Amino acid sequence: MPLPGVRALVFDVFGTVVDWRSGVAREAAAFFTRHNHPHVDASAFADTWRAQYQPAMEEVRSGRRPFTRLDVLHRENLAHALSDHGLDPATIPGAELDELTRAWHRLDPWPDAVPGLTRLRTAYIIAPLSNGNIILMLNMAKRAGLPWDAILGAEVARAYKPTPDSYLRTADILAMAPAELCLVAAHNSDLAAARACGLHTCFIPRPLEYGPNQNPALSRPGQDWDVIAPDFVALAEMLMGSGRP
Amino acid sequence: MPLPGVRALVFDVFGTVVDWRSGVAREAAAFFTRHNHPHVDASAFADTWRAQYQPAMEEVRSGRRPFTRLDVLHRENLAHALSDHGLDPATIPGAELDELTRAWHRLDPWPDAVPGLTRLRTAYIIAPLSNGNIILMLNMAKRAGLPWDAILGAEVARAYKPTPDSYLRTADILAMAPAELCLVAAHNSDLAAARACGLHTCFIPRPLEYGPNQNPALSRPGQDWDVIAPDFVALAEMLMGSGRP
Repeated sequence: MPLPGVRALVFDVFGTVVDWRSGVAREAAAFFTRHNHPHVDASAFADTWRAQYQPAMEEVRSGRRPFTRLDVLHRENLAHALSDHGLDPATIPGAELDELTRAWHRLDPWPDAVPGLTRLRTAYIIAPLSNGNIILMLNMAKRAGLPWDAILGAEVARAYKPTPDSYLRTADILAMAPAELCLVAAHNSDLAAARACGLHTCFIPRPLEYGPNQNPALSRPGQDWDVIAPDFVALAEMLMGSGRP
Repeated sequence: MPLPGVRALVFDVFGTVVDWRSGVAREAAAFFTRHNHPHVDASAFADTWRAQYQPAMEEVRSGRRPFTRLDVLHRENLAHALSDHGLDPATIPGAELDELTRAWHRLDPWPDAVPGLTRLRTAYIIAPLSNGNIILMLNMAKRAGLPWDAILGAEVARAYKPTPDSYLRTADILAMAPAELCLVAAHNSDLAAARACGLHTCFIPRPLEYGPNQNPALSRPGQDWDVIAPDFVALAEMLMGSGRP
């Protein structure tokens, strides 16, 4: 029993459940072709867009900006990323920029995610604890078949990870002690912040999150996390045994 | 097409999706037997407990009390309801009162609710827009098999129905105009407040919500709601036709 007393598994999503880089690059490539910029490296563009994710949230975490949902930050960051890749966002209709922003709603899960979650859900409450906002997570789940019991995360907690409030308010909403939750994530920094708040921790390596040349250190556990599993199906095996369901 | 432009169906839950009176009475009857008060009318007790629901929320709606989730209000109201039925709540262990309060997490759906929602979910986003808090709705859904796409409602909106914020913030969270939502409810007052905010409206009569002697006026539509359907399966037929799925 590797997670004694745990009743809810909460999941990081971008990178842990879904492959954001391929999904964003797929839609960006079509966008650049439509706008006569087929030479733009769509994966590099995805990396540029993603690189502005933490600085944008830091404005909120620091208190310099009131809580603002991620769709809005993604839309703002898109304009910067387009400029960086040689397109003037002012020349593109707003509705097209909105549509490309919703590429983040249409990311594909890693192949083990849906079968693993489907099994885990029979023994645990499962929910995203993502910085993605509710409609983003909802659209993603409905498209991909992610069987969440509820959509939790930054918008519900009104706090972005890795602030303590993001984890502690989520536990409070579930009417559980922090130790009754386990955060499942591919990111050591997220798990470290959750552990500091008293949550259990599970590390899942995602060696392709940042593409084929990803720094190998990113997919190595940085601490003795409570559980380390190669993927979600293996996690279900470890937590629930090999019996049915 | 009775609901043009509607993309999300949001549901009142207590009375509309689940039969709160029978469920609370079932658990209360067992409780009173354990505590040597088998003579208490458990259905009447459920009515007493429920009668304090609106006054307790009104403290929050009026601003006299900060937002407080329904589990807390239910627990406070339970003490009053027990006193009204001859039991001193101070003589009962707190853990037992907590457990009885969670009777509201274990209510059974009306027989048409799960099959209707399962079908509606294939064409619409479906979510509760209830005054019940997140973990209450989550536990109820997991036990009963209610296939919500997300748990929305008062705790997410930080506002109790029928305040405009409860409806308008829910639309904002879904990134939709109010008219892209339809509230499905058995209560004319809830629908009237939603309509005033621009939501579409669907009335489902629940003639047994308050028991076999319910005032027939409660299950009659009070306005020309956009849709009036006898139950959730019929609603799916009306909105989606009789074809599969």
